[in-house]
Amino acid sequence: MIKLVIDMMGSDKGSSSTIEGVKSFLKTHDDVTLICVGRQNELSSLSQLNNVQIVNADDVLPMAAHPLDALRAKNSSMMVAIQEVLDNDADGIVSSGGTGAFLTASSVKLKKIEGVLRPALISPFPTKIKGKKVCMLDIGASNENSPEELVQFAHMGRLYAINVMGIKDPKTFILSNGTEEEKGSPSGKEAFKLLKAENFPSFCGNIEGREVLSGEADVVVSDGFSGNICLKTTEGIASMFSFFIKNAFKKNIFSKIGYLLSKKGFKEISQTMDYKSTGGAILLGVNKIVVKAHGNSDGFAFMSAINVAYAQAKIDVISLIKDGLKKDSNK
Amino acid sequence: MIKLVIDMMGSDKGSSSTIEGVKSFLKTHDDVTLICVGRQNELSSLSQLNNVQIVNADDVLPMAAHPLDALRAKNSSMMVAIQEVLDNDADGIVSSGGTGAFLTASSVKLKKIEGVLRPALISPFPTKIKGKKVCMLDIGASNENSPEELVQFAHMGRLYAINVMGIKDPKTFILSNGTEEEKGSPSGKEAFKLLKAENFPSFCGNIEGREVLSGEADVVVSDGFSGNICLKTTEGIASMFSFFIKNAFKKNIFSKIGYLLSKKGFKEISQTMDYKSTGGAILLGVNKIVVKAHGNSDGFAFMSAINVAYAQAKIDVISLIKDGLKKDSNK
Repeated sequence: MIKLVIDMMGSDKGSSSTIEGVKSFLKTHDDVTLICVGRQNELSSLSQLNNVQIVNADDVLPMAAHPLDALRAKNSSMMVAIQEVLDNDADGIVSSGGTGAFLTASSVKLKKIEGVLRPALISPFPTKIKGKKVCMLDIGASNENSPEELVQFAHMGRLYAINVMGIKDPKTFILSNGTEEEKGSPSGKEAFKLLKAENFPSFCGNIEGREVLSGEADVVVSDGFSGNICLKTTEGIASMFSFFIKNAFKKNIFSKIGYLLSKKGFKEISQTMDYKSTGGAILLGVNKIVVKAHGNSDGFAFMSAINVAYAQAKIDVISLIKDGLKKDSNK
Repeated sequence: MIKLVIDMMGSDKGSSSTIEGVKSFLKTHDDVTLICVGRQNELSSLSQLNNVQIVNADDVLPMAAHPLDALRAKNSSMMVAIQEVLDNDADGIVSSGGTGAFLTASSVKLKKIEGVLRPALISPFPTKIKGKKVCMLDIGASNENSPEELVQFAHMGRLYAINVMGIKDPKTFILSNGTEEEKGSPSGKEAFKLLKAENFPSFCGNIEGREVLSGEADVVVSDGFSGNICLKTTEGIASMFSFFIKNAFKKNIFSKIGYLLSKKGFKEISQTMDYKSTGGAILLGVNKIVVKAHGNSDGFAFMSAINVAYAQAKIDVISLIKDGLKKDSNK
């Protein structure tokens, strides 16, 4: 039986969206126990459900809480939830709480996998090619990374793409400011040399921001700062275009009819670009499955995040990564 | 009389687009001399035009040429053009040749303005607010930048926004992975402190990639590597959306009619997002106006790039920046 701990209080939208997410998730899954952590009185509607255990936590960590404050806030739903993972030897945890606090607290308490230099936040992005996703890591767990950390991100990203995304021989690139070998951040350039020297499988060199979503790459390796810039710029431009498209159709009566005639294609665009269906980002390199849901997740987005954690528990992704890293380092 | 030197051979598309650009530009400007550098036999159609001087250069620098190779390629149109700026004491230069080569060669030969630590590439971006642009610098002249360089980018960006964009009191932000003061790259965090300490006018703190184009910021300061990631990601997502929108309208006969009914609004979107009308990026901090046109500029885009150089020569932007930096450092 898979066991997942859910921080019910982290969302911007309060517990209503997380409760909705849990309920929807359990409609289609019965081989899992969800340990739901939060204010007991708010969670009472979950108490009659099978496969749910409610654990009380009185406090809610503010979204902008500093990682160190998080570690001290032992009664917060996030910290109680992380402790529950350890006490119950659960498979993983899902939270939509503040990124910095959640990632730091999970890394510290759940511990890194042996040999991992730094955990990395990974997330699938939609691409120009229908149905195809690209994984980028790190998108924000770190602020700066050494060449050796970037090399390890390549290894973890490859293992993730093979085992979770089902890609046989993923093409791996480094996020850079040019495609030539001598381009890149100082640590990116060094990582390029190291990956080339070890004959990293299907290492394809540098990729520019412009091509990340072209569909060519399966894994894009980046330091946490630049990866975060790339992720958030993508979100920003996507939201700007949605805004422009809405306005274009609202222009006059003709354009409104135009929308009715062509909305099918436009719904496909918004489905493709909707982060809600991707569920959240995963912190790779710790001993448990750690899924960070978007801070403003609605019920559907939060359900997707639980789904992501569940799917990874199902294939025991942690063992696959542990074994893979061991094999890689024995080469 | 304004004097601009034009590298006629740098474009991916060969001299046909640069010739078209020069011709269109001269249709509406007669207070300027253009010194057009390239293969004389290809440029013969310009010889009958007033205000054009043709200077022969036999070689063309490959797009991917290394900056050091560029400096050695003395007979290339780019290097001859840079030399012509010096020999004629021209106001500036426009080229669509390789970015690294052009920026390095211009900085080295035309020299930095006294007191400038590093030149920065600046470009206006469209925003969510109609007609409003935001300037970001550096978008790729450097690979990494010290906190002091970032502080100077803020000063140059502000002077540019005031004098070229006509913004009275520009709001300046630092590109970061979070809005809180403690977020940012190591040099970004330090620059934040320095700008705060000097009470930099209308310094508004950190901005995330998601908000760069929201219309709130007038100037966004970034190290060259992250700025380049942000710029190219923006280009990539914009091109992906154009592709999606075209496909959505092509779906069936109804969506095609839908396009006819709503195309006005969609044309506005593509005009807003079209880099061709912004003309190119400007290298700030050298003694002459240096405009880098897009490598695949067509005639219209190249004309816009000449326009950018012309408009800056008209207000003598170099003197304004020199004086502004002097005043700032005397404070």
